[in-house]
Amino acid sequence: MKVGVVMGSKSDLPVVEKGIQILKDFGVEPVVRILSAHRTPSQAEAFSKEAEANGIEVIIAAAGKAAHLGGVLAANTPLPVIGIPMKTSDLGGMDSLLSTVQMPKGVPVATVAIGGAENAALLAIQMLGLKYPEMREKFRDYKKQQEEDILKADSEIEY
Amino acid sequence: MKVGVVMGSKSDLPVVEKGIQILKDFGVEPVVRILSAHRTPSQAEAFSKEAEANGIEVIIAAAGKAAHLGGVLAANTPLPVIGIPMKTSDLGGMDSLLSTVQMPKGVPVATVAIGGAENAALLAIQMLGLKYPEMREKFRDYKKQQEEDILKADSEIEY
Amino acid sequence: MKVGVVMGSKSDLPVVEKGIQILKDFGVEPVVRILSAHRTPSQAEAFSKEAEANGIEVIIAAAGKAAHLGGVLAANTPLPVIGIPMKTSDLGGMDSLLSTVQMPKGVPVATVAIGGAENAALLAIQMLGLKYPEMREKFRDYKKQQEEDILKADSEIEY
Amino acid sequence: MKVGVVMGSKSDLPVVEKGIQILKDFGVEPVVRILSAHRTPSQAEAFSKEAEANGIEVIIAAAGKAAHLGGVLAANTPLPVIGIPMKTSDLGGMDSLLSTVQMPKGVPVATVAIGGAENAALLAIQMLGLKYPEMREKFRDYKKQQEEDILKADSEIEY
Amino acid sequence: MKVGVVMGSKSDLPVVEKGIQILKDFGVEPVVRILSAHRTPSQAEAFSKEAEANGIEVIIAAAGKAAHLGGVLAANTPLPVIGIPMKTSDLGGMDSLLSTVQMPKGVPVATVAIGGAENAALLAIQMLGLKYPEMREKFRDYKKQQEEDILKADSEIEY
Amino acid sequence: MKVGVVMGSKSDLPVVEKGIQILKDFGVEPVVRILSAHRTPSQAEAFSKEAEANGIEVIIAAAGKAAHLGGVLAANTPLPVIGIPMKTSDLGGMDSLLSTVQMPKGVPVATVAIGGAENAALLAIQMLGLKYPEMREKFRDYKKQQEEDILKADSEIEY
Amino acid sequence: MKVGVVMGSKSDLPVVEKGIQILKDFGVEPVVRILSAHRTPSQAEAFSKEAEANGIEVIIAAAGKAAHLGGVLAANTPLPVIGIPMKTSDLGGMDSLLSTVQMPKGVPVATVAIGGAENAALLAIQMLGLKYPEMREKFRDYKKQQEEDILKADSEIEY
Amino acid sequence: MKVGVVMGSKSDLPVVEKGIQILKDFGVEPVVRILSAHRTPSQAEAFSKEAEANGIEVIIAAAGKAAHLGGVLAANTPLPVIGIPMKTSDLGGMDSLLSTVQMPKGVPVATVAIGGAENAALLAIQMLGLKYPEMREKFRDYKKQQEEDILKADSEIEY
Repeated sequence: MKVGVVMGSKSDLPVVEKGIQILKDFGVEPVVRILSAHRTPSQAEAFSKEAEANGIEVIIAAAGKAAHLGGVLAANTPLPVIGIPMKTSDLGGMDSLLSTVQMPKGVPVATVAIGGAENAALLAIQMLGLKYPEMREKFRDYKKQQEEDILKADSEIEY
Repeated sequence: MKVGVVMGSKSDLPVVEKGIQILKDFGVEPVVRILSAHRTPSQAEAFSKEAEANGIEVIIAAAGKAAHLGGVLAANTPLPVIGIPMKTSDLGGMDSLLSTVQMPKGVPVATVAIGGAENAALLAIQMLGLKYPEMREKFRDYKKQQEEDILKADSEIEY
Repeated sequence: MKVGVVMGSKSDLPVVEKGIQILKDFGVEPVVRILSAHRTPSQAEAFSKEAEANGIEVIIAAAGKAAHLGGVLAANTPLPVIGIPMKTSDLGGMDSLLSTVQMPKGVPVATVAIGGAENAALLAIQMLGLKYPEMREKFRDYKKQQEEDILKADSEIEY
Repeated sequence: MKVGVVMGSKSDLPVVEKGIQILKDFGVEPVVRILSAHRTPSQAEAFSKEAEANGIEVIIAAAGKAAHLGGVLAANTPLPVIGIPMKTSDLGGMDSLLSTVQMPKGVPVATVAIGGAENAALLAIQMLGLKYPEMREKFRDYKKQQEEDILKADSEIEY
Repeated sequence: MKVGVVMGSKSDLPVVEKGIQILKDFGVEPVVRILSAHRTPSQAEAFSKEAEANGIEVIIAAAGKAAHLGGVLAANTPLPVIGIPMKTSDLGGMDSLLSTVQMPKGVPVATVAIGGAENAALLAIQMLGLKYPEMREKFRDYKKQQEEDILKADSEIEY
Repeated sequence: MKVGVVMGSKSDLPVVEKGIQILKDFGVEPVVRILSAHRTPSQAEAFSKEAEANGIEVIIAAAGKAAHLGGVLAANTPLPVIGIPMKTSDLGGMDSLLSTVQMPKGVPVATVAIGGAENAALLAIQMLGLKYPEMREKFRDYKKQQEEDILKADSEIEY
Repeated sequence: MKVGVVMGSKSDLPVVEKGIQILKDFGVEPVVRILSAHRTPSQAEAFSKEAEANGIEVIIAAAGKAAHLGGVLAANTPLPVIGIPMKTSDLGGMDSLLSTVQMPKGVPVATVAIGGAENAALLAIQMLGLKYPEMREKFRDYKKQQEEDILKADSEIEY
Repeated sequence: MKVGVVMGSKSDLPVVEKGIQILKDFGVEPVVRILSAHRTPSQAEAFSKEAEANGIEVIIAAAGKAAHLGGVLAANTPLPVIGIPMKTSDLGGMDSLLSTVQMPKGVPVATVAIGGAENAALLAIQMLGLKYPEMREKFRDYKKQQEEDILKADSEIEY
């Protein structure tokens, strides 16, 4: 089970790897690439066009500023593409968010929160859950664990 | 093949039904509901908790302003949830967008553009494509048709 | 006299406890909980549904990003709910603010400033003042003290 | 049972009266005034200072642009003050919202959505519910009615 | 002398043609195309890659929402690319603007005002003026004419 | 020659004192006060009402968040009031700016840039220049000095 | 007594003339000009440089979008310059507002609300009031009249 | 081959010099100036008016806040002017961006990303490429190098 994880710049890795780790924890093989929509357009296009044939089932794209990576990948594949708008130092990521989410009719990019690498991975797993029942079960367990973490914190608070 | 389509208010229908039509065109059965995260919380929760057992594979949630519907549904199901932030008369939908997309770690909502009902439906179909090859093929055809529509418009322009 | 104080994450505590302290200073018993609208929806719902029976008279909810906690609690209780939109690292809390304040008709959340835990507590006390004359008096004293603090600073400034 | 309803300009009335109607429907006597924080500061101050003595228990303030009315009233009374940020023709009400909600420590204004006159009235009723059990009951009925309205719309939708 | 004028959708034409007219008025041949970065990525890429060989010297790209067209064209050509962010019905064009202007290091898009088709054309002419002295002269005349129009309006105003 | 300089909180002083220093440098006597529109409304009102009689000719008001101070002072005096919107930690001062500048018809507040204490002082001096020719001359000198500072920096740059 | 009123475009007149009328009502002679910072820079500069010698005591500048007019005029005169940021069709005037108010240290532009032509005129009159006692008196009367208008509306409201 | 590089303040240099370095690397002579639209309007105007005669072919202008420098230079020359909106400490550069890009019809400023000094230089080189084939070739090489840098990072990533 493979999920493509593409980021526009090496500097995105510290954020993106939180999602990569989740994919691994769920037993998904991440196919991690650094590809820029603007600086390596042919390679980005090729990656997207070949993704399906290479066994990739969902693509995650992380990019900042005028974040076109998700859109460019989505333009070239029928696979679902998840976009992570990266936080930016000047506008906080509002530029990345709008560039990722406001896609025109016909080419959706499933957008998660600014810097939301974990949620991008979890959303990919939810999608895989349509096909792979074990992914659905693992996600259910993950939700249960989250719940327990909160309840533990709740039980420990004292006032 | 069923996709849940939930909207927070009857007034959202004129926008949402563009997505419903796409689902039907692709041969997906839309399970359309009007359920409010705030005014019918129990029913919204029940819908979400039972969706999987009812054969629904993806949920689309359309809501405006402090748009909590997608988040509330996602909290109660392991199914992927797609959020459509509805345009608002005062802030243009920026409120709906941020309320839908900025979900905390653990509970993603796959957000599309403000008012993007068609893209929500298409994203659902891309997800279904993981499991159902015919959906993948139909989506490929749809992309091809889109391309042809643009190329036709391009060929007709004269200057 | 009890006021519920719910926060979506343990990390909200350093801000929220400024409000908890004010409640205690006024002789109000804070019922402090960590409950997430998204990760522990059932517990959040249960808390809200039982709040009235448990003697809670006002609920304060602190949450960030797509801040649904206030709305979820308000959906399940006739008690007044006060929302504290938490500051966020990327958008400064604009996301939390709009998610908290832009509630649809029928389910108000009384919103205070971003990070305004003290004001949430004071607003709760003003509400309690409707019923408990001593709270009204204490609030009047608090206002007087504030005035004196400013006047002291004013008297000390030299130019 | 009296609730003060103050608006900064006669032009705010078409929005504000939706809240006035709700107050009346709940059997609350609205004390409706047109008073400007900037153009009639003395009268606004006097209204606020005398509100408690005049039997008013909650104050609702509706104002637009640099919306100071809620803050000015709150500065002069221990009663809870609810602010309705009015929609503006240029910035959609973002100016009114920030001017109303971002109050400094010590002087809260309970802010509802832009143009949210109904919710301001309902919030006032929730506050009155602390003291008057019949208001609590009526609000519970109102919530029930809302739920039924949504469920009726839900039951009528056909696809 | 040729300038490429690409728009992402036929619906952009009423705005874009104001720029096309200016190009014609200056004696520049506009090569007008409808090509979408997302729906016809191959054709957009091909257009951009072949533009130089086809005698095009500057490219103008008009697109709205997550406006990637300028970036995609710029990625595939050494020619200067001018971006026109189109006004959008929900966010006023803020999304288009940020998606167009916030390009990462290495791939600039020369951005003009939201809906600024005339200025895109004039900027193209200024660029052509580097090489073609007659374009420089015509632009100088245009500036002179603008000045005269304002001065005429100024002279006619009466108070 | 006196200019009132009022700030809403002692914490505003490090920014405001840059303006105070300019006033002193120009030979204007600053009447510096800490007065809050919300926490000391009577004193703020009194200051404003008496300012004219006390020989103050212009008032500068610095406040942050829901920055009502300028408006409250302007409501109570025919003197021109200059507003300094203070930078805020969450919204950068956008809240302060809109609360200060978006004043309704009839009660202007002359707003300068976020944190623009120097410009508030210089604007006060420009106003005084209407009446006091020496202020006009000093301002002219100040402008000249600014110009020379830039030209010196310009002459020293080497590339 | 003269006040310069400069607008960047003839299309600004319907808004600006509300301010012109107020100037006339107060007995101030408006010197109305259409001058563009960008299209007639020399004339704008000349106007500003000569304003003082021509008996103008305050300058009002109305401009939209990248609204540089106020700044350009302020750069060339020691007179106080008041800026009216004009509403824009795409961004509501946020662009005009920031371009007008965010002036760097040394060159203030006294900014009023978006589209606030009346307040620009009133602010000019407040400035003139420093020098001309009759202007101060007329402004005081104007304030009184405003108060009476509100009180009349207040007295007529019935609920 | 000369490109003018003007900044509004010496403090802009650390950002701007990244662009200056690129110009030098490409063999372009940068004519670097510190000139303020507001504090040295005559010198800014003179620089712009004489730029063409001095052999400058493109002008780059970097400025922050109410960033008028690009517009002022563009008003006085037929040369293309590129604007760099500088990041600001309060609004992140949104003020600079809107002040630079939202130019009125007739006077374009080719705007790059907030703080995008490198892209401003590269855009200038693309413009020079219209006239100087060697610049076109060097830019092509630069693009190639960028591509290789990304591909190298891509090849080194391991997961």
